[in-house]
Amino acid sequence: MNAEIPVRIFDTTLRDGEQAPGAGLTVAEKVEVAHQLVRLNVDIIEAGFPASSPGDFEAVQKIAKETKGVAIAGLARCRDGDPQRAVDALISAERPQLHVFISTSDIHLESQLRMDREQVLQQAVNWVRYERERLGNEVDSEFSAMDATRSDHEYLLRVYEAVVDAGATVVNVPDTVGYAIPAEFGMLVQRVVDRVGSGAIVSVHCHNDLGLATANTLAAVQAGARQLEVTVNGLGERAGNASLEEVVMALHTRPTQFEGDHTRVATEHITNASRLVSHLTGFTVQPNKAIVGRNAFAHESGIHQDGMLKNRMTYEIMTPQSVGLAGSHISIGKLSGRRGLQGKLHDLGIDLEGDSLEEVYRAAIALADVKKEVTDTDLLALVEQQAAGGVDPEAATPPAVLEGWNVSSSHGGSSRGEVSITVRGTAVNAESDGNGPVDALFGAVDKAVEPVIGWFPKLTAYEIRAVSGGEDAQGQVLVRARRSIDPEDTVALVNGQGLSTNIIEASLEAYVAALEKLIWQEAAGQPVAAGELAE
Amino acid sequence: MNAEIPVRIFDTTLRDGEQAPGAGLTVAEKVEVAHQLVRLNVDIIEAGFPASSPGDFEAVQKIAKETKGVAIAGLARCRDGDPQRAVDALISAERPQLHVFISTSDIHLESQLRMDREQVLQQAVNWVRYERERLGNEVDSEFSAMDATRSDHEYLLRVYEAVVDAGATVVNVPDTVGYAIPAEFGMLVQRVVDRVGSGAIVSVHCHNDLGLATANTLAAVQAGARQLEVTVNGLGERAGNASLEEVVMALHTRPTQFEGDHTRVATEHITNASRLVSHLTGFTVQPNKAIVGRNAFAHESGIHQDGMLKNRMTYEIMTPQSVGLAGSHISIGKLSGRRGLQGKLHDLGIDLEGDSLEEVYRAAIALADVKKEVTDTDLLALVEQQAAGGVDPEAATPPAVLEGWNVSSSHGGSSRGEVSITVRGTAVNAESDGNGPVDALFGAVDKAVEPVIGWFPKLTAYEIRAVSGGEDAQGQVLVRARRSIDPEDTVALVNGQGLSTNIIEASLEAYVAALEKLIWQEAAGQPVAAGELAE
Repeated sequence: MNAEIPVRIFDTTLRDGEQAPGAGLTVAEKVEVAHQLVRLNVDIIEAGFPASSPGDFEAVQKIAKETKGVAIAGLARCRDGDPQRAVDALISAERPQLHVFISTSDIHLESQLRMDREQVLQQAVNWVRYERERLGNEVDSEFSAMDATRSDHEYLLRVYEAVVDAGATVVNVPDTVGYAIPAEFGMLVQRVVDRVGSGAIVSVHCHNDLGLATANTLAAVQAGARQLEVTVNGLGERAGNASLEEVVMALHTRPTQFEGDHTRVATEHITNASRLVSHLTGFTVQPNKAIVGRNAFAHESGIHQDGMLKNRMTYEIMTPQSVGLAGSHISIGKLSGRRGLQGKLHDLGIDLEGDSLEEVYRAAIALADVKKEVTDTDLLALVEQQAAGGVDPEAATPPAVLEGWNVSSSHGGSSRGEVSITVRGTAVNAESDGNGPVDALFGAVDKAVEPVIGWFPKLTAYEIRAVSGGEDAQGQVLVRARRSIDPEDTVALVNGQGLSTNIIEASLEAYVAALEKLIWQEAAGQPVAAGELAE
Repeated sequence: MNAEIPVRIFDTTLRDGEQAPGAGLTVAEKVEVAHQLVRLNVDIIEAGFPASSPGDFEAVQKIAKETKGVAIAGLARCRDGDPQRAVDALISAERPQLHVFISTSDIHLESQLRMDREQVLQQAVNWVRYERERLGNEVDSEFSAMDATRSDHEYLLRVYEAVVDAGATVVNVPDTVGYAIPAEFGMLVQRVVDRVGSGAIVSVHCHNDLGLATANTLAAVQAGARQLEVTVNGLGERAGNASLEEVVMALHTRPTQFEGDHTRVATEHITNASRLVSHLTGFTVQPNKAIVGRNAFAHESGIHQDGMLKNRMTYEIMTPQSVGLAGSHISIGKLSGRRGLQGKLHDLGIDLEGDSLEEVYRAAIALADVKKEVTDTDLLALVEQQAAGGVDPEAATPPAVLEGWNVSSSHGGSSRGEVSITVRGTAVNAESDGNGPVDALFGAVDKAVEPVIGWFPKLTAYEIRAVSGGEDAQGQVLVRARRSIDPEDTVALVNGQGLSTNIIEASLEAYVAALEKLIWQEAAGQPVAAGELAE
């Protein structure tokens, strides 16, 4: 439509993505993801939903302060309190973008909002006006009509007209329930563009319940949408959102289908962004995921195909390099000290210095002692772990330190484990039996810490995977847990990660990392409250 | 287009799906998947590519003999030898459907086939004629133009016309490289329908490299395609194929968008089919996968949303029940013996009797001793494991039996493991150190078996995951391995699975299962040869 001005990429990994049950991130983890999104060169980062919880408020505020060269958006319902809170969190951003929403479908109006159409329209207009007054005309102000695809289209268009008149510069068309089919969604977006496209940027936000989020987003580009709301790995509520990597690479690979429309995304950082988000959220990427799955470029390393050997273009429409999949192996011996590691990490899209570099360097050297070959993947895993466990400045002393452990296990019999741990400054130890070595050791941790802190971590999920192939692969363990004294449906779940060539050690590391987060969470007061579902 | 006659679902999980690097299945596993596809009520099962390997030939032959009430397809290049071999494998099927293909894109003609357009057209016509002569007019005969989307469209249409004149009743339009955008693909399919739709069924086969396989398949339905080639979980080469569950549920959920077009699929078997395929191939399904991901219906069990409580339709466009996601928990104590288990399994879509039932029953009782609650998921995992390890009638004595093991591991130090195993009738044992307990025990297995069989399993992938949540979840371990004496890029990889509440035990079980398969493979002669890439 307008090939000179790139289509905007509005990344909502930290808001809609992080809203996925079980994907919760800490403030430090959200900041780390934001830095990676800056490397990716997205146009807007939706950092959170500030009114939903104190933790989300803090994350948005921190990202707004620390992240430069990108607009920072925050979500708010059209309801007194929400937009004010969002502005407070966003105010120090270089370019704040308040994003207010309200449902426009009759089913939501009747069943959830208990408002009529005129009341909804009036609320939308009021809060868009507030947006403009508080943040001024220099920055964009966004309005979303939740459940747009199931709304009465004439009413929907009337709402968009009214908010654009009130000053909205971006109007978003969300397919909240993942219901739309590309041809029909393209037609709806076309109508919105025809009606308000001269006064505002038309944006789309698609869910993947029928596997169509990427296709609907691309159909919207063909219809004139100029802002695309996406997430890394397609993370998000239920089946997730349109996937950043798929949308960007489709535009990149098939420009003639989109009248030359393109994005500013630095595609070579896609693979690293995908791995970071998968690692921190604990959400695996399936091998056959487009662009970022292990097999997406598997003609590379798998069965060598006759055609591929003769001409790569016979089966390849984009190169692995274009998405930052280098696949190169390095030998840690070749790194000339910290500087060599720094250079190597820079090539991988990561700039580290000072203590962080030192920590990763030491871990890499230690790893090289027990593993024949330290790969790029190993290094990335170490960097991610360092970032994930980055010491919180307000709580410099780690609340739990694993001092030692041992376990024995044999065929058919049970396992017995022993753990020594310092928790809130008190050294304790305990023994426990279990169905397996991990169960035994987790049980020993529970027994050891409960007398000191009054509860123990209650596991809700446990996953191990190898992050690099081969027999001496490092095992990466992800656990999710809540405090044993909280109710079962609590939303105060935390993730813990561990990384070791010994899966038992990795499991314990992850469990203790989760324990630490739960202690921090307790110290911070209220657990995170369930935000109202948005878009 | 024709709402009375359902759109045909042509499932290629066992051909294109199984072609995914690392997804290789044994003959017994393929037969098990075929039985599940019959329960799903697909119209055509593409059982394999008989000329690609003796193993694939055997699998197609066995499925053709054993599977009733469904057409069985086999793939063949338009090249002397291939179609004959495919007919030999298919001949005992109730409804055999030979599927011949040849590339029609200039890049494939020049770089791979080294043929000109007229030669290709002549080959296509010749082998379609052969198809009709060998299998007669009672059954369908299919032709695919590989890389159709990158072919010259006029030439492509000419080829389709010629093969329909020669007797093809199904012409397939594959987007081999996953390159098409829905609007353009719909237009191409429309042209094919206009040209040959009165004489043949138009079929499509879409790859997912840009995340658009499902959308392209649905755009084709809107353009008049009447056969859809799909796979369970979207398994397949690289980023995979259009996903059966997404395509079927989109047609089911949005009938008005498809003029009432529907399929015969029994959607309530979708979840079980997805789990079985994931388990046997070792390919995980990501949490945010549409329809079958853990979170696809996560409003069910995750954060309870205000709207969902007031009216399910506010955020739900299909029910979990419609895809067979029951989520019910059972207590093994409530099962009144084998008959109770049989009834419960029947509800889950699985009919077991005789030895198989007995084996699962014993395993379930044993599991109930170590685990508080035996869930549906646990039962399904046990059934899958029983099926996967189903004793090969030609080799009733298992070639490797794990007799005992023990391991010790502690903080910072290495691990030491000892294994006793009977391999080809010889009892051996060995000890080994390792970076972790699994590494130590696998090393001990290697040391023990190499003097007897001359090689040991060389691990190429190792994955653990919990199949059911909670602290006493069963760990499911998947390993892939080759024989240490085979070259690194060998395609003779096997999968092994293990299942236990002790992850060490599950790992060893999986490793020994892989060892057994490698011994069988050696006994059967040639390892599986790399088939030429198709579609």
